[in-house]
Amino acid sequence: MSKGRLEAFSDGVLAVLITIMVLDLRPPAGHDFSDLRPLLPKVLVYALSFAFLAIYWNNHHHLMHVVERISGGVLWANAFLLFWLSLTPAATAWLGPNVHERAPVVAYGLVLFGSAVAYFVLTRALLSIHAPDSPLAVAIGADWKGKLSAVAYLVAIAVAFVQPWASIAIYVGVAIVWLIPDRRIERVAARSAEHS
Amino acid sequence: MSKGRLEAFSDGVLAVLITIMVLDLRPPAGHDFSDLRPLLPKVLVYALSFAFLAIYWNNHHHLMHVVERISGGVLWANAFLLFWLSLTPAATAWLGPNVHERAPVVAYGLVLFGSAVAYFVLTRALLSIHAPDSPLAVAIGADWKGKLSAVAYLVAIAVAFVQPWASIAIYVGVAIVWLIPDRRIERVAARSAEHS
Amino acid sequence: MSKGRLEAFSDGVLAVLITIMVLDLRPPAGHDFSDLRPLLPKVLVYALSFAFLAIYWNNHHHLMHVVERISGGVLWANAFLLFWLSLTPAATAWLGPNVHERAPVVAYGLVLFGSAVAYFVLTRALLSIHAPDSPLAVAIGADWKGKLSAVAYLVAIAVAFVQPWASIAIYVGVAIVWLIPDRRIERVAARSAEHS
Amino acid sequence: MSKGRLEAFSDGVLAVLITIMVLDLRPPAGHDFSDLRPLLPKVLVYALSFAFLAIYWNNHHHLMHVVERISGGVLWANAFLLFWLSLTPAATAWLGPNVHERAPVVAYGLVLFGSAVAYFVLTRALLSIHAPDSPLAVAIGADWKGKLSAVAYLVAIAVAFVQPWASIAIYVGVAIVWLIPDRRIERVAARSAEHS
Repeated sequence: MSKGRLEAFSDGVLAVLITIMVLDLRPPAGHDFSDLRPLLPKVLVYALSFAFLAIYWNNHHHLMHVVERISGGVLWANAFLLFWLSLTPAATAWLGPNVHERAPVVAYGLVLFGSAVAYFVLTRALLSIHAPDSPLAVAIGADWKGKLSAVAYLVAIAVAFVQPWASIAIYVGVAIVWLIPDRRIERVAARSAEHS
Repeated sequence: MSKGRLEAFSDGVLAVLITIMVLDLRPPAGHDFSDLRPLLPKVLVYALSFAFLAIYWNNHHHLMHVVERISGGVLWANAFLLFWLSLTPAATAWLGPNVHERAPVVAYGLVLFGSAVAYFVLTRALLSIHAPDSPLAVAIGADWKGKLSAVAYLVAIAVAFVQPWASIAIYVGVAIVWLIPDRRIERVAARSAEHS
Repeated sequence: MSKGRLEAFSDGVLAVLITIMVLDLRPPAGHDFSDLRPLLPKVLVYALSFAFLAIYWNNHHHLMHVVERISGGVLWANAFLLFWLSLTPAATAWLGPNVHERAPVVAYGLVLFGSAVAYFVLTRALLSIHAPDSPLAVAIGADWKGKLSAVAYLVAIAVAFVQPWASIAIYVGVAIVWLIPDRRIERVAARSAEHS
Repeated sequence: MSKGRLEAFSDGVLAVLITIMVLDLRPPAGHDFSDLRPLLPKVLVYALSFAFLAIYWNNHHHLMHVVERISGGVLWANAFLLFWLSLTPAATAWLGPNVHERAPVVAYGLVLFGSAVAYFVLTRALLSIHAPDSPLAVAIGADWKGKLSAVAYLVAIAVAFVQPWASIAIYVGVAIVWLIPDRRIERVAARSAEHS
């Protein structure tokens, strides 16, 4: 099995996901500048979701770059990840106009948490068919950033019951941490490229 | 003719199909946890349809992997399959809020049955331009799983007139059977990869 | 300039177009079999539009297969074709519930005619940068099928003012003619593959 | 890191963006030719946005053609560009029925300006990892066309407060200038292709 079509399908799904979210940015009913005001939180939540999906695409891109083989299990782990990510537009559409409300903030966090777990499952499925000293295994390492993100999402979900805005601040914080590209995989990828 | 663009186009259509279904997961009107309750059956039906489309993508991926040549007839058989699969979002949108109703359950089953027949037609179109001892022919074999799935869909359609929930249980059962990757093709593919 | 990304972008646009049309197949308000009746003409028009877009994808696929080089002009001619094809979902959504009405039938025909003209412009742009004895030039030939289709669309538009259903019959007829794969290009492509 | 997947993902996002805009071309409520009249400005604004996105795809295609390497920073600069371009459907949906109104014309201009700035940032990110005499650096050059376009958008935004139609004329003018393919990059690309 080749990883090419897996990458192509994942790219396709992520490209559609990241763009259909914009369908919920409905133009205002009026045509004055003041009519844009209620759109502002929606645009900011959209930007946050766009950032998260772009982060997943980036990490997926880096991860697949050092993958040497895939299996049936990897295909399903990948589909499981795409399923969780596909819930992002729905969670975004609920959070956009309800940034002060507990339930939408929790739902958004659950989608982030589910996606993080699915990504972790995907890396385990890949590790199980690669050697412990493969570039993939070296690149993934202990994956502290992934594990801490999942913990941060759980904390944010708990915090939402007290102060929804604080949870959103945590989501934004995690996104900012990830916006810094994953040097580990990049370094290993560069090294393995040198030797090939 | 190259199979590359056929794969790319099919990937594109399937990627769009699997993601636009999420557009029907409209956020609830309210913003409480209880507002999520009516969404639950919709999410489950969405997950089932996501699984079916992912299964078709996986099988298509495995199938195309051992294909050596395509023809005009194959292009049309593939388009016919994509047409049937493209009805999945509409069938999903109808079934989501009506899981207890006869007609939506039957309609969903008809789309599954039509897709299964179209996939069968595609394999016949491919077999007609491959040698009987080609990796493709060996990999497809008697295709009992495909044929039994089609029969199961017909049974489920009949059962829906008595007990719609039993039909949905059959759909879920078939999906679970297919979630186990197709070892036959995987094995043949691995063997043909060894020899090349 | 490579034709690879042109193909990829066209595949992407066509894949999205062919699938977003299904968003207009809204599930019926009720949940009885009789509620499906008003959906029937919509599904048939959807199938017709699906066939037209699949035909364009097939022809584009065959055409690009024998293309040796592209230019800035070709990129724009291709974008012009995609623009016309992108109006198909809107024309389909109007025609679906109004198959007996003059204006939607004419509008549908205008989109078909514009697409046919744009495809012709694309072939001219390609011919202008290929030798007269290139596989592309041989494959395109006099392109009677393309020219007659454009004429048929004009006739259908005129006929719609008298009898809309007759126009739809013409559209269906043209689609059926095209569903037979283009032997000319297939033959030339096969021959040029043999020599390479 | 390979530029292949960056191109594939960008192609996917742009293909979806350029086609989902058509979802806002809702068919008229009636079924007479006169019902098409209110659709006309919408179709024209749609055509303008289609042209802008096609221009970005073309320029992106030409740009990536001479790119030799990418980096984490380039991936983010590219995502930043895609984010700005993803606002085009929303801006188009607001401008379509409000071509005489100040606010939608300004909003449309801001999306164009943001996209132009993001494209500029992407070229800087690419230049920073290419030699000053690389084909990329030569092809980009001083980029007067890009800089003047950004200035034109700012002028159009200011003009909109006095005369919205004049701003739209400026947007159309900039689009026309860009519809002429970028000879600089095409020439350099052709030259670098000769030497390889």
